[in-house]
Amino acid sequence: MLIVMQSHASEEKIEKVVEFIKEKGFDAHVSTGEDHTVIGAVGRKIIDKRDIELLDGVKEVIRITSPYKLVSRVFKPDDTVIDIKGIKIGGGNIGMIAGPCSVESYEQMDATAQKLHSYGVKILRGGAFKPRTSPYSFQGLGEEGLKILRSVADKYNMLVTSEVMEVNQIPLFLKYVDILQVGARNMQNFNLLTNLGEIRKPILLKRGLSATIEEWLMSAEYIMAGGNREVILCERGIRTFEHMTRNTLDISAIPVVQKISHLPIMVDPSHATGLRDKVAPMSKAAVAAGADGLIIEVHNNPDTALCDGAQSLYPEQFADLFAELKALAEVIKKNFS
Amino acid sequence: MLIVMQSHASEEKIEKVVEFIKEKGFDAHVSTGEDHTVIGAVGRKIIDKRDIELLDGVKEVIRITSPYKLVSRVFKPDDTVIDIKGIKIGGGNIGMIAGPCSVESYEQMDATAQKLHSYGVKILRGGAFKPRTSPYSFQGLGEEGLKILRSVADKYNMLVTSEVMEVNQIPLFLKYVDILQVGARNMQNFNLLTNLGEIRKPILLKRGLSATIEEWLMSAEYIMAGGNREVILCERGIRTFEHMTRNTLDISAIPVVQKISHLPIMVDPSHATGLRDKVAPMSKAAVAAGADGLIIEVHNNPDTALCDGAQSLYPEQFADLFAELKALAEVIKKNFS
Amino acid sequence: MLIVMQSHASEEKIEKVVEFIKEKGFDAHVSTGEDHTVIGAVGRKIIDKRDIELLDGVKEVIRITSPYKLVSRVFKPDDTVIDIKGIKIGGGNIGMIAGPCSVESYEQMDATAQKLHSYGVKILRGGAFKPRTSPYSFQGLGEEGLKILRSVADKYNMLVTSEVMEVNQIPLFLKYVDILQVGARNMQNFNLLTNLGEIRKPILLKRGLSATIEEWLMSAEYIMAGGNREVILCERGIRTFEHMTRNTLDISAIPVVQKISHLPIMVDPSHATGLRDKVAPMSKAAVAAGADGLIIEVHNNPDTALCDGAQSLYPEQFADLFAELKALAEVIKKNFS
Amino acid sequence: MLIVMQSHASEEKIEKVVEFIKEKGFDAHVSTGEDHTVIGAVGRKIIDKRDIELLDGVKEVIRITSPYKLVSRVFKPDDTVIDIKGIKIGGGNIGMIAGPCSVESYEQMDATAQKLHSYGVKILRGGAFKPRTSPYSFQGLGEEGLKILRSVADKYNMLVTSEVMEVNQIPLFLKYVDILQVGARNMQNFNLLTNLGEIRKPILLKRGLSATIEEWLMSAEYIMAGGNREVILCERGIRTFEHMTRNTLDISAIPVVQKISHLPIMVDPSHATGLRDKVAPMSKAAVAAGADGLIIEVHNNPDTALCDGAQSLYPEQFADLFAELKALAEVIKKNFS
Repeated sequence: MLIVMQSHASEEKIEKVVEFIKEKGFDAHVSTGEDHTVIGAVGRKIIDKRDIELLDGVKEVIRITSPYKLVSRVFKPDDTVIDIKGIKIGGGNIGMIAGPCSVESYEQMDATAQKLHSYGVKILRGGAFKPRTSPYSFQGLGEEGLKILRSVADKYNMLVTSEVMEVNQIPLFLKYVDILQVGARNMQNFNLLTNLGEIRKPILLKRGLSATIEEWLMSAEYIMAGGNREVILCERGIRTFEHMTRNTLDISAIPVVQKISHLPIMVDPSHATGLRDKVAPMSKAAVAAGADGLIIEVHNNPDTALCDGAQSLYPEQFADLFAELKALAEVIKKNFS
Repeated sequence: MLIVMQSHASEEKIEKVVEFIKEKGFDAHVSTGEDHTVIGAVGRKIIDKRDIELLDGVKEVIRITSPYKLVSRVFKPDDTVIDIKGIKIGGGNIGMIAGPCSVESYEQMDATAQKLHSYGVKILRGGAFKPRTSPYSFQGLGEEGLKILRSVADKYNMLVTSEVMEVNQIPLFLKYVDILQVGARNMQNFNLLTNLGEIRKPILLKRGLSATIEEWLMSAEYIMAGGNREVILCERGIRTFEHMTRNTLDISAIPVVQKISHLPIMVDPSHATGLRDKVAPMSKAAVAAGADGLIIEVHNNPDTALCDGAQSLYPEQFADLFAELKALAEVIKKNFS
Repeated sequence: MLIVMQSHASEEKIEKVVEFIKEKGFDAHVSTGEDHTVIGAVGRKIIDKRDIELLDGVKEVIRITSPYKLVSRVFKPDDTVIDIKGIKIGGGNIGMIAGPCSVESYEQMDATAQKLHSYGVKILRGGAFKPRTSPYSFQGLGEEGLKILRSVADKYNMLVTSEVMEVNQIPLFLKYVDILQVGARNMQNFNLLTNLGEIRKPILLKRGLSATIEEWLMSAEYIMAGGNREVILCERGIRTFEHMTRNTLDISAIPVVQKISHLPIMVDPSHATGLRDKVAPMSKAAVAAGADGLIIEVHNNPDTALCDGAQSLYPEQFADLFAELKALAEVIKKNFS
Repeated sequence: MLIVMQSHASEEKIEKVVEFIKEKGFDAHVSTGEDHTVIGAVGRKIIDKRDIELLDGVKEVIRITSPYKLVSRVFKPDDTVIDIKGIKIGGGNIGMIAGPCSVESYEQMDATAQKLHSYGVKILRGGAFKPRTSPYSFQGLGEEGLKILRSVADKYNMLVTSEVMEVNQIPLFLKYVDILQVGARNMQNFNLLTNLGEIRKPILLKRGLSATIEEWLMSAEYIMAGGNREVILCERGIRTFEHMTRNTLDISAIPVVQKISHLPIMVDPSHATGLRDKVAPMSKAAVAAGADGLIIEVHNNPDTALCDGAQSLYPEQFADLFAELKALAEVIKKNFS
């Protein structure tokens, strides 16, 4: 931590700051420049930098060590590659997850999975517990949904991902699901994160609607701090002033995250845009920018979907898109797993 | 719901839209203007308007009924006044909640409460379970914290509020706490909201960092839909591009909410700004704009606080501020309860 | 325009609204639903919809005709293709503009242009008048800069673009420049836009930092309303809460704009991210998403650049990137012109 | 400037950075901590910090001197008080500016000014050149408007403010106007700012819709750097994701600006909210938070206003509000001038 004193700070004020940080368990290195005295505070303790900023004569306090450790490339320079029964995500392998917003029935899942499997998709998605902004909307099938998901996936030899919303749902998810999804609204549900740190299945951690990249990485740190090293980040759009799309998909988060973290980063173009005809261009953008995977909503019959039909692709649309994405991946020397 | 057709929409396309909405359980009223045909869809069913927007020839779909009902002034024209053992919030009565960020010890709470009580504060706050962005920070005293809070409050005949973070903590809170607080990060934890709808104690519902006012009201609707009619809204700053304050306190949310809802709205200037010297001006602004209450962080010794000391007022600062706030309230013909 | 009355609106209130809009020059069509009466106001007059919203008994006023006309696909269904001396932008042709932030000297421009020309770039960029946030920064060479730009471009048979900042600079730009650029800060300099509507050279209109897509299109409308039909839109990042990149490049603006407007849309990844190592991934994302062109900062020696060296590519980096972009374009069946 | 090296930075890398900054005209002070070497760069030159951030082994570069000088309290500790013919703004004196959005006719201005004067308002506003998002809207009366404004103000012995949009309009404004207003869209029209620095009349500088407080102060610096020391800042709402109000009025900007700058800061609640019934609460909030003035739209007959009638107060509404504001000011020991 660097403490920059105001240009007119007296010796006495400097001394007081030095005493303060020593009391808090830090070493102090004073360096006097032409204009400003700068005090380096060295130590491993955690301190709220505002406490120092409020001391007399302090101009600014600058944190120089990152708040996250395990998610950082400093800690682990090489890309993390998640490997689930041979299906790889990260390090040049692009994962493709597809499926409907909600599990509605066995027939719907079977019809959808059969198509996706035929196109080469290896991971099936489908919501069983749905977070809905209105108390009057369809809330999901619950455990029944997870059962259907598992049974259909087994039929086609696919993996399965679904969103876990509560700590007490974790045992259920461990039984049925290969990748546990944490939704955008739960990105800072710290108790849930802590508990997911104790299991040993991969977590797909969506970015909160208004979460900075640093906060997002801190949430991944929560999971990793518990011992679970398999975290997949997932960008799904941030909230901005622009309302022509539901959210603004932050494609630049891909190279930013890949520089500072070793974790794979996927993109969800369906929730980001909220509109079917924007899914294809944004999927292509994500792959071209270097994303480690995509999670796309596809429904065997979007017109009758109980949820988010408007952003779900028709199976044939998805097939065309997937072919194009494979060709783009080849150009940048990656490949879909 | 109004469906505006494109100006060149054919009879056939119009017919198809009419069929579609009838199938979904709505009545259709077609009105042909010079430029555009407009179809009114009348009914009580819930439908994703994007499903209609994707139909051929549709230009735009406009929802004309609000998504919330119970929170609306249409449903209940008069201000809701929360009355807890004679302490009133709403309808001209301004509530004042004060206390430290976290309960740290009996001595700290007692010293703080003794001062606050002497200034006329009737409701004490203090966190027992703390949501922290870093897994390496102080996480609160848990039930022990709630016990201390209750025992100190009883000593000074005060009410108590604290943040509940999980469904399974609710019984504990019912035992010790008068007002249950829902934090900004939990504003869309729908399962928690549903469960809080089933209890009969007032809920202080903070606005999420990036929640629109409509989403916030929908979360209040979740609670009210369960039968709990005592919801207090609490504005605590929204996330914007400006980083000189931690968040941007949206003072204009006060008159906006008061126009469309009968629920009282409080303001938390401490978390919104994150800096002690901004708490006084923003508290005064909130009262002048018509807020129904304030929740302010005060610590008997902010310099040693385990959490958020930088935004906590010294007891004497608070005393001066409270006196000024009472004078401002008088001008706008309200009073602190 | 549709005027939705409140559910309890009396006959008298409805009558008053009808009178009001008739007075303003509109025809009124009243349609009475189960819950709400809706009044359609038909006419060509301009009216501030808030004037109606303030009338007694009105719930909401909805504009159903777009505020822009000439920029819309309704007005012109086919893609506009800008053709400057055989170099095409739009309708499947991707334009590539490259060059340094500022024109610094003949030698610098010559060295840069020589390389770019050898890579196949046909349009050269370079600032002569620079908008700088600090009054103490380098402000550009002025007319001397434009002369250098023109003379170097002529040497390599290239086109030239540069930013015009004031109405009285227009004659100068007409003399030296092929495409006139309007910077993000001038996107709503309406007087400048009006004057650019009267010339007959293409305008590259950057999106303002906090401009909605609708406002951006309205600014293009200003230019087109004057008779200049050659407008190229340019997305260059919007301001959001995320500060790890200078701005957030809104890639989704590409398909959104292409759906509602016939105008070509380019992307400026250099200003959007502000960092050299983010330029390549974002350029690829833009092309994959369907952008009609890119404008990229390249400097013969970024380390000595007087301005924005940190976001300028080295010539060799650009060469590699351009090759990759051509391969991506091929996959989506477009080509660089 | 402080340059923080990565924890594993070699001696060689440190040496290269030191050389680089010396070459750029800075002195270097190297300070080696346990984890990180920090290099202090001391000097008066301007350098883009990203140029250093891109050097090998550099983790972060931190600017420690503010980019603004003249606007800062370090430069001038006491409040600037603008005094125009005895009417004071700043340092405990609250200025009140009122009047219609646009000058429409002599009769309209006379009727409005007569009322405002009778309520004690000393400064009249009125637009003559209007920036309009649509090319099809009313654009103002031009010089004729300024003449009317002046003549009416003289009749009632009032001061006058109006928005200047272009450099070449300055002479006209010097002739008719006492305070020249710079609109939000022109906050970074650097050429205009530079030219306003050369005149000797007060400038009311509105904050841009997406301008950070730092950028806003930099724009004030442009004016002051030219020798014009009379700048009044004016907060008028920033663009956020919330759309229930036109913009989000950033009340916290008042104490933030007052801490770092000596310049007075006013608030425009009319443009910030865009709705008449929100003007009163936000005006009260601004005064309570310590604003040095208000600029409020009042029209003798808002229902017939050619522009922004929906956000204009009726004269009687304004009279009531002004009385209440005076009582609030008294509580915080300030007074309207």
